[in-house]
Amino acid sequence: MTNAATSLAGKSVIALDAMGGDHAPGIVVDGAALARERHPELRFIFFGNESDIAPLIAKHPILRDCSTLRHTPDVITSDTKPSLALRQGRQSSMRLAINAVAAGEAESVVSAGNTGALMAMAKFVLKTMPGIDRPAIATIIPTQTGETVMLDLGANIECDAENLVQFALMGAIFSTAVLGHPQPSIGLLNIGTEELKGHDEVRIAASILRERPIPGRLHGFVEGNDITAGTVDVVVTDGFSGNIALKSIEGTAHLISHFLRQAFASSLIARLGYLLSMGAFRRLRKRVDPRRYNGAMFLGLQGVCVKSHGGTDAEGFANAIGVARDLVARGFNQRIAEELARQYGITATAEDMPVLPTGDAS
Amino acid sequence: MTNAATSLAGKSVIALDAMGGDHAPGIVVDGAALARERHPELRFIFFGNESDIAPLIAKHPILRDCSTLRHTPDVITSDTKPSLALRQGRQSSMRLAINAVAAGEAESVVSAGNTGALMAMAKFVLKTMPGIDRPAIATIIPTQTGETVMLDLGANIECDAENLVQFALMGAIFSTAVLGHPQPSIGLLNIGTEELKGHDEVRIAASILRERPIPGRLHGFVEGNDITAGTVDVVVTDGFSGNIALKSIEGTAHLISHFLRQAFASSLIARLGYLLSMGAFRRLRKRVDPRRYNGAMFLGLQGVCVKSHGGTDAEGFANAIGVARDLVARGFNQRIAEELARQYGITATAEDMPVLPTGDAS
Repeated sequence: MTNAATSLAGKSVIALDAMGGDHAPGIVVDGAALARERHPELRFIFFGNESDIAPLIAKHPILRDCSTLRHTPDVITSDTKPSLALRQGRQSSMRLAINAVAAGEAESVVSAGNTGALMAMAKFVLKTMPGIDRPAIATIIPTQTGETVMLDLGANIECDAENLVQFALMGAIFSTAVLGHPQPSIGLLNIGTEELKGHDEVRIAASILRERPIPGRLHGFVEGNDITAGTVDVVVTDGFSGNIALKSIEGTAHLISHFLRQAFASSLIARLGYLLSMGAFRRLRKRVDPRRYNGAMFLGLQGVCVKSHGGTDAEGFANAIGVARDLVARGFNQRIAEELARQYGITATAEDMPVLPTGDAS
Repeated sequence: MTNAATSLAGKSVIALDAMGGDHAPGIVVDGAALARERHPELRFIFFGNESDIAPLIAKHPILRDCSTLRHTPDVITSDTKPSLALRQGRQSSMRLAINAVAAGEAESVVSAGNTGALMAMAKFVLKTMPGIDRPAIATIIPTQTGETVMLDLGANIECDAENLVQFALMGAIFSTAVLGHPQPSIGLLNIGTEELKGHDEVRIAASILRERPIPGRLHGFVEGNDITAGTVDVVVTDGFSGNIALKSIEGTAHLISHFLRQAFASSLIARLGYLLSMGAFRRLRKRVDPRRYNGAMFLGLQGVCVKSHGGTDAEGFANAIGVARDLVARGFNQRIAEELARQYGITATAEDMPVLPTGDAS
């Protein structure tokens, strides 16, 4: 394969942890090829075991002239503790891919590896944005009315009110920049919609958001069923509740498809009905395809980092790459920085901000 | 209508808050008639506005000889704060129905009214069982492998480790007594299955449960998707996370049925397919029918109290009555008391325990 390092300078370069995930490096390389077909401006730096990856890249002519391969000796396994990954994983594919973003060689990093390790390393290497105390994990969820962004999904088990306010701000800017909602509505996840309910933290966050000029509109409290109802454009919560909500949603989707399969297999007539309905089912499956919603974003870092589901396939990994591409192309981090500057008068200084490549869009 | 008060002494008497819920008193009376058809041993005391309820009862010959009607002047509305309900609701249908259980006139109470008010009043009037610090709200959830009980669903926003341990104990006994699992597996809801993850409270609860002889088997931590997967028989969590998980599950079921309707309406062939599959869909709907799972149980009180969904119909209310009946018939509270006595050497004293009717089963 061609070493195209020199041609990678500039825009739309994505660092890929080629060793992360259950089916790496195969799905990483195949996913990159798919993503490149969709976004011809993309270029990749693969980090991982050279002898495993080089033959895989060679199979995709589309990747040859837009990819570099960097050999990395170590791999972060799925059961490595974040603290250990941080100490002993300096030569891992994951760490070196993140380093490439900090060094300005790539604009974003995508990994299907260990979430905790990825977050710990990304925080350590890229640092949080000035004005953001903690990064959050966000994802897009399909709803009855369109799509909603929810955060945090597990980066922060306990959050204070100010953390939630910052999540609301980042979620609203994401909703505007990436999903195109000019004035996104924001809901704080709670167990009742009355003002008196819930933890202190959500109640204080609501009162802060009511007073502050925010890039969106505070709807108020929302409940678990509001997430998929599409009641608001942005659902804000702590990482414990958010993770449980997201996984409860995923589990229920599995349960119902399990029940549906059983129902259709229950009689010959039902099977015939299924055959006739297959087109409709295919459209439905496409609509709720978890691969379509693959790509959890680490928001609040000085660099774009996207976590793909560990068990995904090439299609899912290509979508995670697409998410990273969108975040860069829509200038998500620049918008956050502008909003923070407006809100708190915070401007990044040379010491705060590592060298970051300029974004694709303003 | 016959005033059958004297014949109500003894077993299987259920006090019904006839004014609670969106469609009261109609669905309460119709639901009671349905429940009586299924369980001919049941007797009812209706609490509510006599002139509204008497004509409704008169329409059901099956109810005439097994029901008493007590006129109550006040109603707790759905937006009444629990503290206010407690202070000013002493003559309400809800309060007087609960009082009937404390007085030994009824063995259980069922209401489709304001959850917070019902819990506050039930706690105040019935008291928690000796050895249980806080009551919990529990419900049964359909899973890929059968049914799981989950608690708490919102009675306690914050829980310490000992609360969670007590919920585990009550959930396990419920699973054995009502769902028939001889050795139920218990999972603590968390955001990862590793021992290091989660709040202090869940981690400490896990270590306590690992050491104590419990009426079941500790599986360990489970995640949101494990609830409907049926990974464990009992899912234990705090009221904040439990409420969000339950409502996320409900919301996802709505989302998917919304998508299914759209998919089947999308073409003539899909509609024909739907017609052929209708039998299968009917079975599926029956399986996940929220009315079938109506009836959240308040566990840990010295008396049986069941909360029906506020928006349910007669079928759903009949199921909530069935839940109350099962808890009494299977001697759930006696089993809890026996287990607490075994665990902590706690025995109820005359002062602790209000006069309770003896259960239907030992």
